[in-house]
Amino acid sequence: MKDDEKTTIRQEETDGGSPFGFTRREFFNATATSAVVGAGLAAGGWSLGGGTAQAAEGNQDFHVGPGELDEYYGFWSGGQSGEVRVMGVPSMRELMRIPVFNWDGATGWGITNESRKILREGLTPAGKRRADKQGGVLRNGDTHHPHLSMTDGSYDGRYLFINDKANSRVARIRLDVMKTDKIVQIPNAQAVHGMRPQKAPKTGYLFCNCEFMIPQPNDGRDMESPEKYKTVFAGVDAETMEVKWQVLVDGNLDNTNADFKGTYAFSTCYNSENAVELNGMMRKDRDHVVVFNIPRIEEAVKKGQYKTIGDSDVPVVDGTKGSDLTMYIPVPKGPHGINTTPDGKYFIANGKLSPTVTVVEIDKLDDYFKGGMKDPRDAVVAEPEVGLGPLHTTFDGRGNGYTTLFIDSQVAKWNIEDAIAAFQGGDTNPIKQKLDVHYQPGHNNATLAETKDADGKWLMVLSKFSKDRFLNVGPLKPENDQLIDISDGDMRIVHDGPTFAEPHDAVIARADQINPNKIWDREDPWFDDVKAMAKKDGIDDLRMTNKVIRDGNKVRVYMTSSAPQYHINEFKVKEGDEVTVVLTNVDNIEDLTHGFTLTNFDVCMEISPQQTASVTFVADEPGVHWYYCQWFCHAMHMEMRGRMLVEKA
Amino acid sequence: MKDDEKTTIRQEETDGGSPFGFTRREFFNATATSAVVGAGLAAGGWSLGGGTAQAAEGNQDFHVGPGELDEYYGFWSGGQSGEVRVMGVPSMRELMRIPVFNWDGATGWGITNESRKILREGLTPAGKRRADKQGGVLRNGDTHHPHLSMTDGSYDGRYLFINDKANSRVARIRLDVMKTDKIVQIPNAQAVHGMRPQKAPKTGYLFCNCEFMIPQPNDGRDMESPEKYKTVFAGVDAETMEVKWQVLVDGNLDNTNADFKGTYAFSTCYNSENAVELNGMMRKDRDHVVVFNIPRIEEAVKKGQYKTIGDSDVPVVDGTKGSDLTMYIPVPKGPHGINTTPDGKYFIANGKLSPTVTVVEIDKLDDYFKGGMKDPRDAVVAEPEVGLGPLHTTFDGRGNGYTTLFIDSQVAKWNIEDAIAAFQGGDTNPIKQKLDVHYQPGHNNATLAETKDADGKWLMVLSKFSKDRFLNVGPLKPENDQLIDISDGDMRIVHDGPTFAEPHDAVIARADQINPNKIWDREDPWFDDVKAMAKKDGIDDLRMTNKVIRDGNKVRVYMTSSAPQYHINEFKVKEGDEVTVVLTNVDNIEDLTHGFTLTNFDVCMEISPQQTASVTFVADEPGVHWYYCQWFCHAMHMEMRGRMLVEKA
Repeated sequence: MKDDEKTTIRQEETDGGSPFGFTRREFFNATATSAVVGAGLAAGGWSLGGGTAQAAEGNQDFHVGPGELDEYYGFWSGGQSGEVRVMGVPSMRELMRIPVFNWDGATGWGITNESRKILREGLTPAGKRRADKQGGVLRNGDTHHPHLSMTDGSYDGRYLFINDKANSRVARIRLDVMKTDKIVQIPNAQAVHGMRPQKAPKTGYLFCNCEFMIPQPNDGRDMESPEKYKTVFAGVDAETMEVKWQVLVDGNLDNTNADFKGTYAFSTCYNSENAVELNGMMRKDRDHVVVFNIPRIEEAVKKGQYKTIGDSDVPVVDGTKGSDLTMYIPVPKGPHGINTTPDGKYFIANGKLSPTVTVVEIDKLDDYFKGGMKDPRDAVVAEPEVGLGPLHTTFDGRGNGYTTLFIDSQVAKWNIEDAIAAFQGGDTNPIKQKLDVHYQPGHNNATLAETKDADGKWLMVLSKFSKDRFLNVGPLKPENDQLIDISDGDMRIVHDGPTFAEPHDAVIARADQINPNKIWDREDPWFDDVKAMAKKDGIDDLRMTNKVIRDGNKVRVYMTSSAPQYHINEFKVKEGDEVTVVLTNVDNIEDLTHGFTLTNFDVCMEISPQQTASVTFVADEPGVHWYYCQWFCHAMHMEMRGRMLVEKA
Repeated sequence: MKDDEKTTIRQEETDGGSPFGFTRREFFNATATSAVVGAGLAAGGWSLGGGTAQAAEGNQDFHVGPGELDEYYGFWSGGQSGEVRVMGVPSMRELMRIPVFNWDGATGWGITNESRKILREGLTPAGKRRADKQGGVLRNGDTHHPHLSMTDGSYDGRYLFINDKANSRVARIRLDVMKTDKIVQIPNAQAVHGMRPQKAPKTGYLFCNCEFMIPQPNDGRDMESPEKYKTVFAGVDAETMEVKWQVLVDGNLDNTNADFKGTYAFSTCYNSENAVELNGMMRKDRDHVVVFNIPRIEEAVKKGQYKTIGDSDVPVVDGTKGSDLTMYIPVPKGPHGINTTPDGKYFIANGKLSPTVTVVEIDKLDDYFKGGMKDPRDAVVAEPEVGLGPLHTTFDGRGNGYTTLFIDSQVAKWNIEDAIAAFQGGDTNPIKQKLDVHYQPGHNNATLAETKDADGKWLMVLSKFSKDRFLNVGPLKPENDQLIDISDGDMRIVHDGPTFAEPHDAVIARADQINPNKIWDREDPWFDDVKAMAKKDGIDDLRMTNKVIRDGNKVRVYMTSSAPQYHINEFKVKEGDEVTVVLTNVDNIEDLTHGFTLTNFDVCMEISPQQTASVTFVADEPGVHWYYCQWFCHAMHMEMRGRMLVEKA
């Protein structure tokens, strides 16, 4: 952006309208034009050919009739809701919501002892201080990028990982029970934005981009010296969910990805200027992609070539420019998404403020790290112009990329080898088709496209704006997930799907790749803590026990349930007692979930078949307090209840 | 239930399986059989005729293509999620989620000052004490029955009301902005279950059933004397959302409804035994419906014929048996749903534990209250046997009722006038069709069926179990909302819709009946509090102001935003300052929502076009803290951010 007047930040007063004096759409277009000019690129000279297809009915059948099953599981970020949504594809039906960073009364997430431990134990010291101010756990998070664990580049059905930009965390969901089981907050970081699991040989690491640059440590020093701010790239052990190491880098990190060999991760960087306001972030013509050499980082850590920062004991190695742990590849201004092709040959950095995508050949990275390549740009094998505002690219496994164009509100389908040929001077037009989407698309993903098994059936485009596509629901509108048939030559939109709270990203796996349990297994480690507590109280089998144990002013109520009854329907405590209710659902019939709600006590939880759940509260209001089953379980469900009698102190 | 052995509650130990020694489905059937025998009814002798139709494609087109709009708004309870879901019908797409009793990071519900006031101010003293223990507001609620405001028996598009069983509250949602604007907690109550707005002349009252019987007051007295427990029926002023009066009644209240004249409300009662455990609740053969004479209740309150209970100043009148304010109509054991026919002539109490529904002629209620009717059963004009486990009935406006059969997993379509004729001794079979649904249906509702405008197009059945109807998602399964075409003679299932957290109920209005604003109106009373605060700080127009004001250790940051910028991108405070950020989105373009997230501070909120939102927190961690826009607003959205600098104390 050359025109500073256009991007002046007015800190005092505004006229109440756009600071630019024209409408948002005009501004989008103006921005794009400026970016194109500003970036000074004219990588392609092709028309944006292929024609714009109108939305139409597809060739594949996307209608999944009553009682029919979907062919794919989709895992959607819940965006600012802080949860993960499990979808059926192609029906686009929401099959389940999994609480992650949010509080959820339906399952008792944030309320049960089991969930509170998961929400709390991985927090940094500052995170724990924050949580203490609101009852022990944080209350919100911003689920961003869901990604599945892999073995040898294929989904292995074990875990889903997702990051929280708002409070700098990463969570793991066990796919066998579809519950979050670990959360870690990344130290020395603000805003964990990009996150990807290692693809091969298995998901040993999660690679995490920490976006905002801050003083290191961020304890009040260097606040006025932005030039000293730094951010980090972090490696999290996917099995233990501990941060193994961090790498200091130059510039803001945006999105990240990994190769299919286990050697490299790569991150887009915007704001290579290290600026703290918008016009400063636009000063240069180019930003970069940082390539991380994982074996070298591990080696540096092993050799003790690291420091620690503040109250964190995570080893931090130096990967700023000039380090032999990293490679900085200059790319057009403001790259955003970064995507690895299913054949493992290339990664593609999406231009955002440039109309181009940059194709890098992964095998060439070895040359750089071995010293054979001097100019990192030599790893670039194509840089096609795909349209305005390219954000993310996905793949069909047939050699084509599908790039979302935020400003054009389109998806561009382009051929990778054709783009490479054109970059080498050929006259091939790599653009195969452009399709209008509605509107301002962000992430997209095709079926299995993040793995070597990309099958080119369905493309999901997550559009940020829906405007007039649905019945009006007030000032806050839904986003719009559009399902696109890519099974043959032409892309065709077959479904508009409104969504809440801006899902940032989604991944899609084949149904046979995900195999959840039907009911809980009593040997599940989920129950280890509560079993240990019970053992101290002399209880061997929670399924066989209905007992109230007093321990000073602590009362533990071990209770079972089977439809339509709790097997303790009355217990008595004293005002001020700390009460722990441990409830085991002994029904072993699929879908026969019970609940436990203590009326007017803000206490509730789910207990699915063969599950044990526990909750602790202070019985601080004298009187009769009914508890009841809130998951409809039986014709006499309304009658499934009991009383806690609290004697006045 | 005659066989006490079968329903013995084991308080000590169980064998880890069903206490009845047989499977759930066998138990459902056994329960039903017992209930049929136990209730001693043989109201009909017809076969359960009409044949069971297989699920099939419907006659009406339920496919809403990309870019097409739905014909109806659906308002769904979010069940234990504590929110309301706005759906498009017949596409069954979720258009929006409205936080009500839950916390929601996407909109900042439970986090912003505006939402925290709404969540807190209507709580009872005990509710406020509870809320104080978890940061000032309750953390969960259990949205049950959504119902729309009416004028003269038609939807007027002003409000949606919904109740919270878990914490005994009722909330109001403004349909112009689709935000919750009032919440009241009902005193002297545990578990507000049934809730309905008055239908005519307008929604002046919300009628609320408080389900569980408790000592009055519930302060530790009478705990061991269940015979003294009572519950109340409450009238809430729909405009002020204050509880105007309560009525003490006999038995547990379940569901409620109102006539189309403004004279009567009626509630089903189960557990007329006043028992506190399951077998006691099954002792009698019959329970009852309580009819409330609203003008007489108002008159009694006016005359001072009431008491108050505990710390509540709500007038409580006596409506127990023998009162002239109420009428107790005996009905078969355990009635559940209660539904008024669209022509206003009848209400129908659904048998649950009896295979019958009881049809009461509303005009006959006048006879009783005038003294002309001695036996309240004389108001019953039909009691057809519809199948096992009737829970709720809805209507097509063509004289037919559609009753969900929980145990049979069916919907029974039956003709009301045919049932009346049969009750009078005729040989007509009122049952027209039975349709299998999947599985265990609870609430159902047809388009506009709660109003005089019932149009008989679509029937929604909310099934409690989905079992094998969808891809498995672990031990917790979705529920299943099934869309049924009722536009012609035969019901046909056209869509299976999985849902999270057991939506209890849903209502459906025509699209033209709901007219939300496209963006916020600056004169909206939503902003009154924040405008008053700003005025004291000398600020006339929040849209024109970017200013930081210090007031002792309190700092108020008045800020505007327009894509892609906050117009204050740096402010400095001291460690320990209490900071209030007031943010006004000056963009006036539809769908251009901004957000404000303060990284690692667990603070986030939505600011839709022309909205102001505010949040208060303590700046208790020194250092640089980035705030950023979390609702994707622009190609340079990632760059939309600023810094709070917290100086070490």
